[in-house]
Amino acid sequence: MHVLVNAAVSADGKLSSRRREQIAISGDKDFARVDRLRAESDAVMVGIGTVLADDPSLVRHDEAHRAALRGADADPPARVVADSRCRTPPDADVLAGDRETYVLTSEAAPLDRREALESVGATLIVAGAERVDLPAAFEALSTDGIDHLMVEGGGELIFSLVEAGLVDELSVYVGALVIGGREAPTLADGEGFVADFPELELDGVDRLDDGVVLHWVVR
Amino acid sequence: MHVLVNAAVSADGKLSSRRREQIAISGDKDFARVDRLRAESDAVMVGIGTVLADDPSLVRHDEAHRAALRGADADPPARVVADSRCRTPPDADVLAGDRETYVLTSEAAPLDRREALESVGATLIVAGAERVDLPAAFEALSTDGIDHLMVEGGGELIFSLVEAGLVDELSVYVGALVIGGREAPTLADGEGFVADFPELELDGVDRLDDGVVLHWVVR
Repeated sequence: MHVLVNAAVSADGKLSSRRREQIAISGDKDFARVDRLRAESDAVMVGIGTVLADDPSLVRHDEAHRAALRGADADPPARVVADSRCRTPPDADVLAGDRETYVLTSEAAPLDRREALESVGATLIVAGAERVDLPAAFEALSTDGIDHLMVEGGGELIFSLVEAGLVDELSVYVGALVIGGREAPTLADGEGFVADFPELELDGVDRLDDGVVLHWVVR
Repeated sequence: MHVLVNAAVSADGKLSSRRREQIAISGDKDFARVDRLRAESDAVMVGIGTVLADDPSLVRHDEAHRAALRGADADPPARVVADSRCRTPPDADVLAGDRETYVLTSEAAPLDRREALESVGATLIVAGAERVDLPAAFEALSTDGIDHLMVEGGGELIFSLVEAGLVDELSVYVGALVIGGREAPTLADGEGFVADFPELELDGVDRLDDGVVLHWVVR
């Protein structure tokens, strides 16, 4: 499975402020670029932190582009949530509508919560004891036909994926503002590395809106 | 006074890991670029966090470039430490040698520590009750002939300067690695903004070493 992380950060590397509210970091041209990337993906993924903070529906994509790629009858991109404890609210927008939603979870998720998510149509993939075993869960997604996965955050999930060696590419829009804050979420949070930092290769630099898109390939 | 912030960050916006050790983020060409910027400055500034973590001497600069700009007898760039409580150790490298070092501090700094720094040659600028009053301290630097100040971090100082509206330009080398860590220092830490985010203008994008230098002007 090919995994592309896409995110927009401020000039100081923040996804949002310490309040974790959505902030307009990029502009219309970047939105169009992201919609196009979604249209090229089999599924779009976020972490549970993003579900709880933003309640995203993950339904927007470039329909004309998808139709051109896959035909007018093609299914829209599926949705994936990494959610070790099944904390996704059953009325979350990411579960709304008839589009496929996978919830990657662990054995530690209470059974009643798993059932609540399944009863509203989620497809559960259970892997790992306390936390989602991301490599195993990605194997299951791959078996289910997800070949191109686009990850949209947040920083905890992105760090976990980089740490697990599961990321192939990073596309980062750097916007023309300062957010600041030692507690504001960044592109890669988690525990962080202290040695053997994963190396990237800069594959492209494109000015867009008032900022720039940096395209990195993981070595 | 014209204030340029210069820093190198990982692709995920970190100045260092959670251990706050120095990490090679850029390469020889960026080092040369930074030495040149220092040579064009009247003074080079860091915050007390950087002094305590890295013990920088702040003496390196491009001597040939400075001689070409100011003549062979020109003084080297002065050094400035923002240090509200005079926690700079008297044997810190930033105070070593005969180059001028300003310590910007507050009324809250204990008298014995102020005297210890003055006894090893530091020039104290006392402004503010509990924390350095940066605008007032910068006025004093300006009166002392500092017209071009280069700020090299860390993230707490950079945030304070942006918050005080004292930054004119930001030059950020973005390097080809992931550091990660919700507790790792970023380009702008502090409390962070939650609204009215300072706006920048992207003035230049230059690929250098394995990364890219983003040059921002504060609006």
